[in-house]
Parts: sequence; C-alpha cells; structure tokens
Amino acid sequence: MRVGIIGLGLIGGSLGLDLRRLGDRVWGVSRSRATCELAVQMGAVDYAEPELEHISDLVHTDLIVICTPIAQVLPVLQKLSKYIQPPTLVTDVASVKGAIVPSAQAIYPHFVGSHPMAGTAGQGITAAESGLFQERVCVVCEGEIADTVAQFWQRLGMKVVRCSPTEHDRAVAWISHLPVMVSASLIRSVSQASDPQILRLAHQLASSGFRDTSRVGGGNPELGTLMAEYNTTPLLTALQTYQQALAQVIDLIQNHQWRELYEYLATARDDRSLFDICRE
Amino acid sequence: MRVGIIGLGLIGGSLGLDLRRLGDRVWGVSRSRATCELAVQMGAVDYAEPELEHISDLVHTDLIVICTPIAQVLPVLQKLSKYIQPPTLVTDVASVKGAIVPSAQAIYPHFVGSHPMAGTAGQGITAAESGLFQERVCVVCEGEIADTVAQFWQRLGMKVVRCSPTEHDRAVAWISHLPVMVSASLIRSVSQASDPQILRLAHQLASSGFRDTSRVGGGNPELGTLMAEYNTTPLLTALQTYQQALAQVIDLIQNHQWRELYEYLATARDDRSLFDICRE
Repeated sequence: MRVGIIGLGLIGGSLGLDLRRLGDRVWGVSRSRATCELAVQMGAVDYAEPELEHISDLVHTDLIVICTPIAQVLPVLQKLSKYIQPPTLVTDVASVKGAIVPSAQAIYPHFVGSHPMAGTAGQGITAAESGLFQERVCVVCEGEIADTVAQFWQRLGMKVVRCSPTEHDRAVAWISHLPVMVSASLIRSVSQASDPQILRLAHQLASSGFRDTSRVGGGNPELGTLMAEYNTTPLLTALQTYQQALAQVIDLIQNHQWRELYEYLATARDDRSLFDICRE
Repeated sequence: MRVGIIGLGLIGGSLGLDLRRLGDRVWGVSRSRATCELAVQMGAVDYAEPELEHISDLVHTDLIVICTPIAQVLPVLQKLSKYIQPPTLVTDVASVKGAIVPSAQAIYPHFVGSHPMAGTAGQGITAAESGLFQERVCVVCEGEIADTVAQFWQRLGMKVVRCSPTEHDRAVAWISHLPVMVSASLIRSVSQASDPQILRLAHQLASSGFRDTSRVGGGNPELGTLMAEYNTTPLLTALQTYQQALAQVIDLIQNHQWRELYEYLATARDDRSLFDICRE
C-alpha cells in the first residue's frame, strides 16, 4: 500500500513504524523539519516534508491518515482536497467524530472517520513505538467505503468497532472524556487539603491506587480541553450523572449506611467486569 | 527474630515469605485450617494453628503482626494480651490508625500502629508474593518503642514514614479512601447511561484510561466499606472538597471557558508530579 501520514506525533509516528514493517511505502508531513528528519531516521516514513505540496507521491496515495490535533483535521483536509481525488481515501484518528465526520465528508466524500483507541503517556515522534495498535480497539464510522479503512486498521492488529459519529461521541464521553475530568478533579481536590503538613504526608504516602486513579487527569491538558470543547453536550450529560452517583455515595457515608455502601461498592465491582478491557 | 503473624491473607502471607527468606522463625494463625496448611506448604510460616493458644512459641515471640481485617484487630489483641508480655511487641497493618492505636495501646502498651502501603488486586494466601513490601512506604505511628517496629519494616525494604494516627488518617483519606469512592462512582455512573446501545459500545470501547481510573473503585467492597466506617470524618471532608473541584470543572465546561479549563487541567498535571509515586 501507499500511505500518507499527516502529523508525525505519537500516533502518526507509531503508525508509520508498523506500516513500514508491513512493507508499505509511507510518506509523512510535519510542520517541523526536525520532526520530518527524525521520522525518517527512526524508520517511521520513507520520506517526509513540511509542506504537503512537496510530496511527490501525493496523487498516487491509496490512503492518507490525518494524525493532527482535532482542530487541524478539517483545515488539513481542506488543503489536501485540492491535490487528491478518489480512489484515494482519507481517514483521521481524532478522539471526537461528530464535529469532524459530516463536515469532512462534505469537503471530500472519500473520507471515513476513525478513532484508534491507543496511546501512551508519551507525546511526540520520540514517543512513537511499533505495535502500539496491536489488540486495541479502533472505531470506524459508517460510510460507503468504510470497509477498506476497517481492513487497514485490522491489518495493524486492531479490533474494529463500527458505529455512527454520534454513537461514538456519546460512548467515549463516558469512558474516555469523563474519566479525565473525574481524575483531574481528584488531583485538584487533594491539593486543596487545608493543612500543609497533611498535604506533604499525602505526597509521601500516595501509592499505586492514587497513581492509577490520577493518571488520565494528569495527562496532556490540551487534549483534555479539546475533548470538552468538541464533545461538550455528551460530556456534560456524563458529568451530571457522575455528580449524582457521587452525591449518593456521600449520602450513604454521611448517614452511616454501611450495608448500602457495601452494596454500592459491590455493584461497582460487578459492573466493572462488564468492560472488555477490565477482563483482560 | 521470632515473629508471629495473625491473619494469613495477602499481607500476612507475603510478610511470612519475606521473613523466612531473611532467616526468621515465623508462626502463623488463621481461622481456616486449610489456610494454615497452605501457608506451611508455601513456606510463608514454619507452622500455623487455627487457635492462638496452641502456638508453642507464643511467649517467646519478639514481634507479633496482626494482619486481620480492621474490625478484628482490637478483639485479637484483647485475646493475645492474655498470653504475652513485654518485651514482646505487637503491631498491625490496618489502613486506619485513629480507631485502633489509642485503644490498642490501652489494651497492650507495647503496641505500635503500622500501615504498610502495599497490596495487589489479589486476596488471600494464594495471592501472597515475596518482595511485596520492597520500595513501598510504611507508616509507623509514633510511640516509645516505634523504632524497633520501624526497623522491622525497613528490613523488608520499606521506606518508613512516622506520623500520628490522626495525621495518618487524614492523609490516607485523600490519597487512598477518596480515590476508591471517586472511582466507584465513575463505574456506577457509566452503568446509568440511559441508552443500552451506548452502554454496550462503552463496554467495548473502554481502554487503559478507563481501566486505570476505575481500578480501585472495582476493588474489594468490604475493604472500601471499612475505610468509610473507620475514617468517616476525614473521608467526608475529602469528598466534599472533591465535590467542589468537580463542580468547578463542570462550570467551566458549561460556560465554554476553554482557557480556564486548560489552566485547571495544566495545574492538575503539575500538582500530580508532587506525589512521590507519580515520579517513579
């Protein structure tokens, strides 16, 4: 396959490493010339350029994957659409789909929305790693030519789930965007411990439980803000439901309803096992 | 050293494995005869009995560690105190200290409260593992004979932090008990997603972020309930502060204050790096 990657960060870089291992010809675009050079050195791309129009293979590419931050997907596609035509396919990797897919298909009908649910704590091309997508889930939005895009991700070892952009956004509000806000609020509240000596002790005593619960809340603030900006309504619905669940647990503790608290926590334990990832 | 372990679960069993590797003579007590036999077979104890009074080395023991659930610590110590006398030391491993230490010292003045902050998702003697305490933090409460108990945990590779029972309980409310309630509420709220199709999708799409944020909330419900029961006031203070931090983030999203949301999340990221465990 001939594949193009626009945006050579963690996802774009990791994608390139896997594709080239599979024998694909891969070009890349990154605004930073240093990133372009590093991507070539690492073996993530055959060649890379800061400007789209300097990509010699552009018109002969089978599939182009836009791996930029959410806000750049549509502007990049707009520019791209001047140079390409079907059967060249375009997809993206953004963590919201409703704000992107309909507009993207209006710009270029051969666009299919994707969201590979893979990542690490790292950022940028230097954090790229091969095998990042293996065994992970990838959402591919419905559409005429979605089968080809689904096969593309499956070839990288991903489990493809098909749904509409709206369904995607509502589901990830619960399991990806809500946890970020819940976890960030945890960190922020501990910092508000009124006694500085207790806060110092908390810094010393925190163990793996705190580390894991606070992990996504301590992640990239730009990404967290974009999630909220591009998926506001589903995220607010999730946050308000969460607020009620929290109020319920506080009530139980305030009223010393220990048997009911036990039931609450036992149901949480049972419900957690319904998530595929928690059974692995 | 001659050490006794009362309660042969994950902590008691792991403790025995490490102590015997260091050459100590270790006896154990577990209500279940099958657990006693398994503990001997695994090499966690030299011998074990279901009844305290059948332990032949009882009066010659240097240190006895009570590794039972919180509610059993004082009743066990009450019984134990009939058979032992100084210089035999007694300590415990319970995750609350204020409800235990003063009463325990009234029963047996040679008692020092400990809380080794180590554990896994496992439960029971079969989950015991050597090296569990290595590099982890152990709280040892202040007291005349606390130095000997501190050295005991240091010998197992633990980093000892000294504080009062009250300070301990206030600090762990923030970094251990609050995360359990925050995380359980996350699981419970997702289950309340109104559309069953979205919930099914959420079960499929959840990835490592959800898995980590929900881990402690999906833990042993008995332990979670006991934390709340024995540390009610500090936990409620933490929960109410958390509720305010959450309301703040919801407000920012509702009002589309993206720059302020970015600042909120950036501060969370920076604050997280103040926790020793998050820098490892």
